[in-house]
Amino acid sequence: MIGYYERKIRYYETDKMGITHHSNYVRLMEEARTDYLEENGCSYAEMEKQGMISPVISFHVNYKLPTTFNDIIIIRTALVFYDGVKSKYEYVITDKESGKLIVTGYSEHCCVNQNGRPVIMKRAFPEFNEKFIKLLESQSIIGQ
Amino acid sequence: MIGYYERKIRYYETDKMGITHHSNYVRLMEEARTDYLEENGCSYAEMEKQGMISPVISFHVNYKLPTTFNDIIIIRTALVFYDGVKSKYEYVITDKESGKLIVTGYSEHCCVNQNGRPVIMKRAFPEFNEKFIKLLESQSIIGQ
Amino acid sequence: MIGYYERKIRYYETDKMGITHHSNYVRLMEEARTDYLEENGCSYAEMEKQGMISPVISFHVNYKLPTTFNDIIIIRTALVFYDGVKSKYEYVITDKESGKLIVTGYSEHCCVNQNGRPVIMKRAFPEFNEKFIKLLESQSIIGQ
Amino acid sequence: MIGYYERKIRYYETDKMGITHHSNYVRLMEEARTDYLEENGCSYAEMEKQGMISPVISFHVNYKLPTTFNDIIIIRTALVFYDGVKSKYEYVITDKESGKLIVTGYSEHCCVNQNGRPVIMKRAFPEFNEKFIKLLESQSIIGQ
Repeated sequence: MIGYYERKIRYYETDKMGITHHSNYVRLMEEARTDYLEENGCSYAEMEKQGMISPVISFHVNYKLPTTFNDIIIIRTALVFYDGVKSKYEYVITDKESGKLIVTGYSEHCCVNQNGRPVIMKRAFPEFNEKFIKLLESQSIIGQ
Repeated sequence: MIGYYERKIRYYETDKMGITHHSNYVRLMEEARTDYLEENGCSYAEMEKQGMISPVISFHVNYKLPTTFNDIIIIRTALVFYDGVKSKYEYVITDKESGKLIVTGYSEHCCVNQNGRPVIMKRAFPEFNEKFIKLLESQSIIGQ
Repeated sequence: MIGYYERKIRYYETDKMGITHHSNYVRLMEEARTDYLEENGCSYAEMEKQGMISPVISFHVNYKLPTTFNDIIIIRTALVFYDGVKSKYEYVITDKESGKLIVTGYSEHCCVNQNGRPVIMKRAFPEFNEKFIKLLESQSIIGQ
Repeated sequence: MIGYYERKIRYYETDKMGITHHSNYVRLMEEARTDYLEENGCSYAEMEKQGMISPVISFHVNYKLPTTFNDIIIIRTALVFYDGVKSKYEYVITDKESGKLIVTGYSEHCCVNQNGRPVIMKRAFPEFNEKFIKLLESQSIIGQ
């Protein structure tokens, strides 16, 4: 399943170069990921309430073209790896108007409980585990 | 007691107008306030560990002149009101090089415990209460 | 005219108190204001292209209740003062689900050209001037 | 040459997990990089004034351990690649008190002029070019 998330760039997200500051794409991809999960029955707010936390292990961003204030971007998100302990998401950001490629990226996450201990999803959170398996996309979307 | 805090403006704090985005001064004043408290024996990290939380009730900022990337600003902070339940801090931000006035502001805070209940400092946190009383500045520094 | 803007609180907008960090409401109100203006024919991106800049003179925020990750807030915005040089906007933020009051605030702005000089809107930007006059709300919405 | 940058984690940089939000390390590494360059005669503010801009091409962050409010971190920065057009910086973040490894990362940059055109540093900015060559570190510091 590939997620679709649309978002306008905000003034406070630009920098003195006149473009979206590069650090904000990491935040935009987090927005896209949580919405993608929520739309597929894996609300991150709900997971946290049940005691599951999913910290980021790594983040990788490739910048192709800049955006600026009021531009509307589209973020496509896909869960491309999941083994019941770790997961990997890919992101493709395009400009809505021109369709041009803005940013690609991916992030890796693990699952821990509230004490920070790694968790085997199948045992600890069987329902979420099944939803993640269904969500799993067979192919990379960043074609790298 | 008046606190003194020095800080360089960062690239990601500027916006496409070429200046420090106005929202960041609220963060800069939080930095100055926590350092001011820590230097005077009221570490906010320590307070939180002991179960005291101090949420913001209001924030007021007056913008006089802009700053930009790499400018060094000085933030003077003073606790100008404290009655054992509520407190008020004032802030004066100047440009280090020119000495010019950049921003003035003030914030109001209350004291609550971890359940969000208002707390009488004298009873709940007598040590911090005494330090706050010593810290109290008799005169406004923003001269408003 | 009163603007209506809906927005989900993002994970990166929360702090270790478990709630939306207070500085973010200033950014949320900027989002609401630019959308409000754009919907009423005063795109801020367009104004900037034509050489008009509208820096913030002051910002005032009163915090009533906290919000947290995934909460949906509604921001009502109104232009309550405009004299052709300065303008004042008021903001009322409520929680969508409960309807409870979260934050009220207001901001004051002036109009300058690209050299930072104050501008008389009627002469410099007659079209925007007329739209601002139409937008002007006769009554305060924060009832202060 | 390896840069050394020390910095306290701020309250607004934490999230509801109680730790520094992962997106902030990208900003912390930018701070460390600009300070590292400035201390070695390559002020980024000065470069921009002379018409040189250095956008980010990619960013990669590996998260080892979390930090939180008031923790002091040390960021070591090194320019590990420079060919007169592109450059690559590595970052190693450790906790000052414990010495533990927090984050490693690297970023790639190109040099463009104010029209966004790639620039050959040797011709366009010979002085900065020489300083970059001197700065170049022969070995990776992230040992990957």
